[in-house]
Amino acid sequence: MDIKYMNRAIELAKLGAGYTNPNPLVGAVIVKNNKIIGEGYHKIYGGPHAEVEAIRNSTEDLIGSTMYVTLEPCSHYGKTPPCVNAIVEKGISKVVIGMKDPNPLVAGKGIEILEANGIEVITGVLEEEVKKLNEIFIKYITTKEPFCIMKTAMTIDGKIATKNGDSKWITNEKSREYVHELRHRVSAIMVGIGTVLKDNPLLTTRTNEEKGKDALRVIVDTSCRIPLDARVLNLKSNAKTLIATTEKADKEKIKALKDKGAEILFIPVKKGKVDLKYLVSKLGEMSIDSILLEGGSTLNSSALNEKIVDKVITFIAPKIVGGKEAKTPVDGEGIGFVKDAIILKHIEVSKFDEDVMIESYIRRRD
Amino acid sequence: MDIKYMNRAIELAKLGAGYTNPNPLVGAVIVKNNKIIGEGYHKIYGGPHAEVEAIRNSTEDLIGSTMYVTLEPCSHYGKTPPCVNAIVEKGISKVVIGMKDPNPLVAGKGIEILEANGIEVITGVLEEEVKKLNEIFIKYITTKEPFCIMKTAMTIDGKIATKNGDSKWITNEKSREYVHELRHRVSAIMVGIGTVLKDNPLLTTRTNEEKGKDALRVIVDTSCRIPLDARVLNLKSNAKTLIATTEKADKEKIKALKDKGAEILFIPVKKGKVDLKYLVSKLGEMSIDSILLEGGSTLNSSALNEKIVDKVITFIAPKIVGGKEAKTPVDGEGIGFVKDAIILKHIEVSKFDEDVMIESYIRRRD
Repeated sequence: MDIKYMNRAIELAKLGAGYTNPNPLVGAVIVKNNKIIGEGYHKIYGGPHAEVEAIRNSTEDLIGSTMYVTLEPCSHYGKTPPCVNAIVEKGISKVVIGMKDPNPLVAGKGIEILEANGIEVITGVLEEEVKKLNEIFIKYITTKEPFCIMKTAMTIDGKIATKNGDSKWITNEKSREYVHELRHRVSAIMVGIGTVLKDNPLLTTRTNEEKGKDALRVIVDTSCRIPLDARVLNLKSNAKTLIATTEKADKEKIKALKDKGAEILFIPVKKGKVDLKYLVSKLGEMSIDSILLEGGSTLNSSALNEKIVDKVITFIAPKIVGGKEAKTPVDGEGIGFVKDAIILKHIEVSKFDEDVMIESYIRRRD
Repeated sequence: MDIKYMNRAIELAKLGAGYTNPNPLVGAVIVKNNKIIGEGYHKIYGGPHAEVEAIRNSTEDLIGSTMYVTLEPCSHYGKTPPCVNAIVEKGISKVVIGMKDPNPLVAGKGIEILEANGIEVITGVLEEEVKKLNEIFIKYITTKEPFCIMKTAMTIDGKIATKNGDSKWITNEKSREYVHELRHRVSAIMVGIGTVLKDNPLLTTRTNEEKGKDALRVIVDTSCRIPLDARVLNLKSNAKTLIATTEKADKEKIKALKDKGAEILFIPVKKGKVDLKYLVSKLGEMSIDSILLEGGSTLNSSALNEKIVDKVITFIAPKIVGGKEAKTPVDGEGIGFVKDAIILKHIEVSKFDEDVMIESYIRRRD
């Protein structure tokens, strides 16, 4: 067992990012005599699994080889036949697995079948990395609710915009490019109507690289105030714009929005607003496994209060704008005492030139 | 020339931190036959220079040896005789220097004398590191004004306190321990009267290590509102508390403060408040080479507007408190457009467990 092959499998898995949702990212490498003889990854939802891709791409006989695969091979008929069958048939003698299938219905079954067929199995190799790779899949498969990433961008003095509301651009080009990669990666982007009215964003994925799959654009708009000439309603995109509204919405406005091709989702009202918890459940039912929350302070505050946020990505730009009235990443009522703060864990810091990015996860208090 | 010896000299120099102000931090290492035969550093203001310490501590004859020293050796009689004389007399044949003396009156003179005596000189070794080591000295010797470090501590949503004003504790123990190291390092700590009234801090240096030199406590208090029972006026400390006030102050209050041992500095009024620019010049005249600004949002805003800040140290804690009314690191009027923001440069990121610290420097627009 050599860990470098699992690292390679992870690298391969990442190539599928944005195309496999709500399926996991999986990479596989087949090694024989210390040489990689086959590689593959799960390229697209509904397409062949990584294991099958690696077998197909192999340049040599597989008898006696070792397969490194980031996720436990499947043992059930889904959109494709079970991978364990192919592994057994080809005479692979050892399988090194990053993590067990997080789906409680099938976890461990693939391993059982492999072992029953005399194949040596090692599990839990680079498990932390592999779990991070599939954080979206793990949440979705176990809860049927989307993994929600709250993205904020602020100055080093904690402002997401100046007192005038100007936010172009707090962060640098590299940070913004990375946000487009995030958009590519997820199934939906969510903003509040406030952001649409203020910034009139496109919410499409614009990367320098080829990959640039648009995500479903979800606009949280309790009273359906979105202008018919908003850019999100008048663009070319391979994804839809969905207005999450309530019974407060004007019927004729709804009709006009539908005529423009927008999807409408009626959500119950909670505290006078769209019930976010209900909304994300609905989105989960629609196979949305992940949401990038790019809201302003108010939507962020509501999302945190409703406990729909899983991960927080904070960009910090080396700028100071000051201002008592300037907005911060999260407003709303706020917490009275530091001891009651929402706690983040697994902090990771990266830099995009002089911008700092902090990735973190909400620690649940159970 | 081996860079590792300069690294060692830097290490030694740092041991003097907090004790040499307003002198620089200097370390010296003497090497012969690839072996360190003497080490020294500038331990305390007025004490022997690093070069002399290293010579004194040498275990062998210095003829033909190489000295590594972080700063150009002095050539003038100050509190001690010139170091270049000792170097020449001892027969040291090569001197490797981190940076030239930043004092424009003497820069290069030490090197000239060494070279005139047939000693080989190499300059600019690990220059960036050495300049950072002496950022305080460089500012002070060239401007006679103190180097000012603005320290802030905020949640990942940009708040320095909750809506209730609670800030105990935003950051973790390790971050707070590091702040005490910063206090030890500087000549003065500055806060606004608002912080005294709200938090009633001690502003002493409390570290786990031995080093724990208190800095002059400067309270910016335009109308002299400080209560006579404030902790900064009633503590045992090897440093004084100084009230920077204006003619607005009540005469009897001033007398009472003096009776308690406080220093009083009358500063002209600017826009209804203590003129901060004037105050720091005055502090410079009093040999204060460095200030740690631990103010709230308002003092930070004024200090930035008055352009007295050189460096910004931002602690970011993995917590979210929210709140439209919660304070942020810098308030005041604020800037209208991001393009006019104060820009920070030379960003460096460190972690204290799960807290993130960002060090940065104000980029001056000239």
